Amino acid sequence: MNLKDYIASVENFPKEGILFRDITPLMADGKAFKYATDQIVEFAKNKDVNLVVGPEARGFIFGCPVAYELNTGFIPVRKPGKLPRETVDVKYALEYGHNELSIHKGDIKKGSRVLIVDDLLATGGTIKATIDLVESQGGIVAGVAFLIELVDLNGRDLLKNYNVLSLIKY
Amino acid sequence: MNLKDYIASVENFPKEGILFRDITPLMADGKAFKYATDQIVEFAKNKDVNLVVGPEARGFIFGCPVAYELNTGFIPVRKPGKLPRETVDVKYALEYGHNELSIHKGDIKKGSRVLIVDDLLATGGTIKATIDLVESQGGIVAGVAFLIELVDLNGRDLLKNYNVLSLIKY
Repeated sequence: MNLKDYIASVENFPKEGILFRDITPLMADGKAFKYATDQIVEFAKNKDVNLVVGPEARGFIFGCPVAYELNTGFIPVRKPGKLPRETVDVKYALEYGHNELSIHKGDIKKGSRVLIVDDLLATGGTIKATIDLVESQGGIVAGVAFLIELVDLNGRDLLKNYNVLSLIKY
Repeated sequence: MNLKDYIASVENFPKEGILFRDITPLMADGKAFKYATDQIVEFAKNKDVNLVVGPEARGFIFGCPVAYELNTGFIPVRKPGKLPRETVDVKYALEYGHNELSIHKGDIKKGSRVLIVDDLLATGGTIKATIDLVESQGGIVAGVAFLIELVDLNGRDLLKNYNVLSLIKY
């Protein structure tokens, strides 16, 4: 199955000059959605993963079915103000300004073997922040999986010390 | 398995006087996450469901694994500005102001049998708006499933004509 057939490329979204890779046609197709999810499950299988972590909102789309299939829990990484209990937070720089991400304190036990899942690897800022959160709690990043990698943006440079899977490359 | 054992109740979140039902401990436990998801899959099984729909972001958490297990596609219902192609939108009233939700035009084919999944049934505004989106495209709402129902808020009054499942009632 060629997963690229299920990605819509939309010009000038969210702003002028950006070519947006839209994964919703892939999600809408039961066979393609299952196939892509199963590739990530397969990648995780020899890595003793016992926890899946994904940033909101699109990290939930593949992360939750992967956790379901691996029989592990899923920890959501969320924007500030969404999690009701005590959190651990990380700030990271954007081109202009910064972003902040949070997990609940105590959700990642020391020594947990974590698979991080997101839809897209671009410059890698979100995923590096997620890795920092996991490692700050003593979690071990056993693998990092994406549906799509935008190769020209060199996000992989931040992930040299990790096992990385991307199912579609542009 | 008593799923209530995996829900944290947090007082005064997101604001004074609100008792927030936090589902993240349930998600973090692989057995509880799988058990809850499988209850929704079981509910869907005799309903000829061929599409799952869920509102962002927490509707993705159970909706995506349910779609995976049912071998169907998943259609995300999103806030304005998130979907790159032509959308169908619905506005609905809140206590103060209004909210708006969108799906991509063409994602729900006429006659699709749709299972709608979300984490929480409160007053029912979000879910009624989601139903309206599905039905405006000719989709048939075969069932509506929630992890949690806040019974006192009477959201079920809006869902009298539908098959409704809630796994935990408060």
